[in-house]
Amino acid sequence: MSIEFHIDARRGLARAGRLITPHCEIETPVFMPVGTGATVKGLPQDILEELGVQILLGNTYHLYLRPGVDVVRRFGGLHGFMAWSRAILTDSGGFQVFSLNELRKVTEEGVTFRSHLDGSSHFFTPETAIAAQIGLGADIIMAFDECTEYPADRARARASMELTLRWAARGKKYFEAHKHEAPWRFAAESARNTQSLFGIVQGGMDLELRKESAERTIEIDFPGYAIGGLSVGEPRERTREVVEATLQYLPKDKPRYLMGVGTPEEIVEYSNLGIDMMDCVLPTRAARHGLLFTSEGRISIKQARYTEDEEALDRNCACPVCRRYSRAYLRHLYTANEVLAQVLNTLHNLSFYLDTMRRVRHSIPLGEESHFISDVWSRPKP
Amino acid sequence: MSIEFHIDARRGLARAGRLITPHCEIETPVFMPVGTGATVKGLPQDILEELGVQILLGNTYHLYLRPGVDVVRRFGGLHGFMAWSRAILTDSGGFQVFSLNELRKVTEEGVTFRSHLDGSSHFFTPETAIAAQIGLGADIIMAFDECTEYPADRARARASMELTLRWAARGKKYFEAHKHEAPWRFAAESARNTQSLFGIVQGGMDLELRKESAERTIEIDFPGYAIGGLSVGEPRERTREVVEATLQYLPKDKPRYLMGVGTPEEIVEYSNLGIDMMDCVLPTRAARHGLLFTSEGRISIKQARYTEDEEALDRNCACPVCRRYSRAYLRHLYTANEVLAQVLNTLHNLSFYLDTMRRVRHSIPLGEESHFISDVWSRPKP
Repeated sequence: MSIEFHIDARRGLARAGRLITPHCEIETPVFMPVGTGATVKGLPQDILEELGVQILLGNTYHLYLRPGVDVVRRFGGLHGFMAWSRAILTDSGGFQVFSLNELRKVTEEGVTFRSHLDGSSHFFTPETAIAAQIGLGADIIMAFDECTEYPADRARARASMELTLRWAARGKKYFEAHKHEAPWRFAAESARNTQSLFGIVQGGMDLELRKESAERTIEIDFPGYAIGGLSVGEPRERTREVVEATLQYLPKDKPRYLMGVGTPEEIVEYSNLGIDMMDCVLPTRAARHGLLFTSEGRISIKQARYTEDEEALDRNCACPVCRRYSRAYLRHLYTANEVLAQVLNTLHNLSFYLDTMRRVRHSIPLGEESHFISDVWSRPKP
Repeated sequence: MSIEFHIDARRGLARAGRLITPHCEIETPVFMPVGTGATVKGLPQDILEELGVQILLGNTYHLYLRPGVDVVRRFGGLHGFMAWSRAILTDSGGFQVFSLNELRKVTEEGVTFRSHLDGSSHFFTPETAIAAQIGLGADIIMAFDECTEYPADRARARASMELTLRWAARGKKYFEAHKHEAPWRFAAESARNTQSLFGIVQGGMDLELRKESAERTIEIDFPGYAIGGLSVGEPRERTREVVEATLQYLPKDKPRYLMGVGTPEEIVEYSNLGIDMMDCVLPTRAARHGLLFTSEGRISIKQARYTEDEEALDRNCACPVCRRYSRAYLRHLYTANEVLAQVLNTLHNLSFYLDTMRRVRHSIPLGEESHFISDVWSRPKP
């Protein structure tokens, strides 16, 4: 066994479930904080635990370049290397290879790209991307896909989708032959002792292609499916349309992962459509720019209006930042370029995302629509 | 009452005491972490509490420029502004005015200087420096002194010392007239409801001048005395000589504060000479440069030798960093320029300093010489 997925309650298309991985039981729908380089920027692991994070996302592209897969494998994988005992998911590196490398060269075999760190040349194939992810040892790993650019015409979107399908089959074959090689130190004794490989649906913004991609990816057979290639510049209504259409063709009894999405409003919206897993750099990246999410709207903490504001950042939030510090102090830290600004801002934003997901999940068995959040967000700012 | 100082045990010149301030009872000898801009760079206040920090140092110069004394006063002083309920000491701004401002202009009245932030012109006097510190509301505040440059000839050192003495008398007079104006919200109910103003001994490297400065500062009468103007470029033996000489002339029943010193070895050494309070940016600044203090010597964590090092940073340290993370992980964070590197490195270095001071303090009633640490430090690196 690698993972189990149980659906505990439904309301319309939404599902409240439990995803049981080798390292942690995860309540879904779940938001996965992004820990690009084996760290969620600015936060020690014990704070992530206190926030209730059950699964983190790591980026294979970044970890492959630094510190390198061999180093991480020697520590028993990312779990050992970063001292994190709960679940981890790694992406395949595909998205970064395409988004960070203008000089990439794609062939049937794989992608040649240059490191954004030192310009050195590297080659990823569907097999080496899986091998790297086995070395990193995440609970859930992802097939190597081509993230279709936006906009793309139909011929281009089809060709890209077909390539992703051929790569998915190659990746699956490699994974089946090597899936017992995860470097977990407790792997031998565990009942769930292998990683899980998820497939990724592509097809650009074309609903027919999305349907075909979903059906043919399911034929290859994975324990979970992701929807990739969204949030690449398309209008938000288009994203929703593609997600809604694609979900119809995905198995109801397996976890569904929407990659790289989104705002607090969007994670609520997509949970309501039946998405089980999401990740996004938004809460952590926005924190670094002083953009904070609250139950009463977004706050740009650098604004002069907060100079003497004694209020908590979010009066409805029970996170350690809102319990202790004033907006004035957070503004001071940000404008003085203090590192603590990043630490506290990230802590609050992640807490807000995780709390939002908990509220959505707990509302599903109650049969209530999850409109409570968008209702609140429509209020004017305090 | 402002402060009480009790000496519980002595061993040779060393004293183990308790300094009771309005906000916290402090075990001495004590190392005070530097929180320049109302934050110990990178660490949330709850971590400082967990480390056992009883008193923090704030820099008046920096806080005066940003966020400004009026803002801080409105929050009930630094305690309210930075949400820190234990003790705080502020320096007078004198050291920064002299060290950060090449264009300063000193007159009998005070110092004109330019902000290192925006070049704006400001004027500090012995009175305004106290007024600012009353607004910031620290438990212990410092007289405005001229930190004599090194090297200085005897005439220059004497003139500078005489100026500091005249300024000390002016500052004391201003303080006595305004000492009930601290913005503490609980001040009215507290038995110890005023701040304490400490005097500062100057005199350059001249032992005669140091004696005279001590005697004449004591005549002005303060509840505690600092030794200033050291660690300004002089050889370390000279520092020790001046400290030893000056301590002879300071009252035995009042706290003695050595400003801006030093390495772990030095804080042990000066504790053994009878110093009760010290502060230094070294543990926090070194952390930002990846220089870590351990019981087995200094470690530059960026070195390639730590790339795959599974050991804790310091096997004799029980801090949260040493309990959880490997040297390899800390090296990865540092070389990848991750913010978490600063957080964890600072956490460890401060823990090491505080732990060192605790060991020194606890050894004093036992009558043991505090050589345990220098013995260990003379070992080769692991």
